[in-house]
Amino acid sequence: MVYFDYAAATPMSEQAVLTYQQIAKNYYGNASSLHDIGGQAKDILDQARQLIAVPFHADSREIIFTNGGTESNILAIDTLLRSSPISGKKHIISTKMEHSSLFFYLTHLNQLPDYEVTFLSPEKDGQISISALEQAIRSNTCLLSIQHVNSETGVIQPLEKIGQRIKGKDIAFHSDIVQSFGKIDITSLLPFVDCMSVSSHKIHGPKGAGAIYFSEKLALQPHPIQTNHEFGLRPGTVNVPAIAAFAAAANEIFTDHQAKIDHLHYIRNLFIDRLEQENIPLLPIITSHQAPTILGCVNPFVQGDYVMLEYNRRSIHLSTGTACSVNQQKIPASIQPFILNQEEGKRFNRFSFSHITTDEEVEQFIKVSKQIFSKMKGERRKYEQEVNR
Amino acid sequence: MVYFDYAAATPMSEQAVLTYQQIAKNYYGNASSLHDIGGQAKDILDQARQLIAVPFHADSREIIFTNGGTESNILAIDTLLRSSPISGKKHIISTKMEHSSLFFYLTHLNQLPDYEVTFLSPEKDGQISISALEQAIRSNTCLLSIQHVNSETGVIQPLEKIGQRIKGKDIAFHSDIVQSFGKIDITSLLPFVDCMSVSSHKIHGPKGAGAIYFSEKLALQPHPIQTNHEFGLRPGTVNVPAIAAFAAAANEIFTDHQAKIDHLHYIRNLFIDRLEQENIPLLPIITSHQAPTILGCVNPFVQGDYVMLEYNRRSIHLSTGTACSVNQQKIPASIQPFILNQEEGKRFNRFSFSHITTDEEVEQFIKVSKQIFSKMKGERRKYEQEVNR
Repeated sequence: MVYFDYAAATPMSEQAVLTYQQIAKNYYGNASSLHDIGGQAKDILDQARQLIAVPFHADSREIIFTNGGTESNILAIDTLLRSSPISGKKHIISTKMEHSSLFFYLTHLNQLPDYEVTFLSPEKDGQISISALEQAIRSNTCLLSIQHVNSETGVIQPLEKIGQRIKGKDIAFHSDIVQSFGKIDITSLLPFVDCMSVSSHKIHGPKGAGAIYFSEKLALQPHPIQTNHEFGLRPGTVNVPAIAAFAAAANEIFTDHQAKIDHLHYIRNLFIDRLEQENIPLLPIITSHQAPTILGCVNPFVQGDYVMLEYNRRSIHLSTGTACSVNQQKIPASIQPFILNQEEGKRFNRFSFSHITTDEEVEQFIKVSKQIFSKMKGERRKYEQEVNR
Repeated sequence: MVYFDYAAATPMSEQAVLTYQQIAKNYYGNASSLHDIGGQAKDILDQARQLIAVPFHADSREIIFTNGGTESNILAIDTLLRSSPISGKKHIISTKMEHSSLFFYLTHLNQLPDYEVTFLSPEKDGQISISALEQAIRSNTCLLSIQHVNSETGVIQPLEKIGQRIKGKDIAFHSDIVQSFGKIDITSLLPFVDCMSVSSHKIHGPKGAGAIYFSEKLALQPHPIQTNHEFGLRPGTVNVPAIAAFAAAANEIFTDHQAKIDHLHYIRNLFIDRLEQENIPLLPIITSHQAPTILGCVNPFVQGDYVMLEYNRRSIHLSTGTACSVNQQKIPASIQPFILNQEEGKRFNRFSFSHITTDEEVEQFIKVSKQIFSKMKGERRKYEQEVNR
């Protein structure tokens, strides 16, 4: 079995499973309970918060735990909007390439009388244009929400440059960094981005955990539902075992981080080189600013879901896009710059890698690809002969 | 160590831990992914849904998974309000005794222009009055949300009678049954209540999972954030391992259910009898309609948090109320009918039991109680002598 869908979900690391198990068994208290069983759970939570703060070079008070990436995105936006000093109708700038959780939430806000959202499109290289962004800024713009790494193409948005342009303005800057956290170095973002969403199950942690980094310079208003949890910003019993396991997974992934990133680059290059060497008709989308974890490919024959199923029959697992958007037939905005027409957009597949991906898996994939595409070429030839007859 | 705070959090059962571990390791796919790894996760999810449907005598399509009790309550209310055919300002009826997640959310809605909420108070026996409820119903009442078992006193609300009174009216009926699910028989509710919220970590399942039962007769509108998850009613990657472990815990607790309920009644009676026999000055709140899991007690000496700390020092863990409301100094509405004055309300403690609570734990508690209260009586006597001198 070969799994190339790490951008959708990752298996929990051994360490994360062990941590979960140990904490669930031994520290089962409600972290809000005042007795020692609750206090022990709270101590575990505090330690996890300190671990997650490390890659953000942050104080642990700047970390809020959630139940995952979607909640992180929505809670971040909600909290920032509630905390914005701008009165009257609030204007938000985002992109058409955001993860569905964020894109649909912003689309929903855009339909409400209190908000207006500008969605920027990608330019030829998949990045948004800084000048288009600057032109979009209005006097009532209170929030920018721009993803870091796109989940279909791996394109990295220039958050540092964007952050520079809004410095000094009263605009909060949020980024969904679910696809970059633990996968590329985020240090360069830290001076520029106020708020970032991350998810545990994309970095070999458990499902059901995520976090938001809120810079301490933000003056955040509490959640409208009065709550003692997570500094008053989130209601609901805190999932201490999952959070502890998330922190363990993060700690693992940020240990020897550069070596893991180097391995990802190595795997991606190997994948691209082997496709070319073996004449596999999967054309990778390559730009100058991409994460090594995600590679979009277009084929000249059939729709992506057919390709996915052909590989699936041979125990190789890849996707047609983002798992949370399956069944939506629209071509994602993120791949529009890279396709000639909408038909080509349907012939898209996503391959996503982890630091645990091996050379052998790539070779197994190449072997199977030869079978699949020689079959497809044969079918195509037969079809063309029939049409021409 | 003796733990009497099962109403706040329970340890995961061995079976739930094993299930979590096994699913997290072997079925890590995103249940929305179309390949086999995703499909396997979806199969596990479907099986869990069937298991949770059993105690509701429901079809699995009537079960929506969430990340816990708080989300279940809020998502249930939101979905029912969105789906209500009543136009214009919507009126909701609830009680002052709801769990903070629901009470504060309804308080928040009450402050918005689109909603109005009537909060009913408990009568002398801790139940709401049916005639007060009938008087509160208006032409624009679209929703009733009444808890089943109170988390401070264990009082059971007469949901069957309430349901009878609104039958045929266009009013949805939701109940937070977090403190009764798996703890008392809920069969009698089923013909009367349209929608119920439950939580996993109150029944020896993992934190981070919960469910809502929505009767299929409700015509539910999808979530405003377009989502493929949970029949379009909830966004966010589904936490399959936690849900599978939740279902395993539910399956366990509903197996030989009556024997577990009988044991709970036995433990509660033993606890009350032993308090009385040993002259422990903890006066239990006893009414005619109570779950055997929760017992509120008032003492004549000191505030509940002091009592809690005294027991805590001796490794016995109980609470001063609901964990999610700690640090809130207000006397809960649920105990108002049972106290003479606000001072007495502060001398409140909650003891909560599980089917795994043993006779030995009760005896250990009685032994420690004698020590604690003889110390308190001594201190009180000394204090009174000093005052009288």
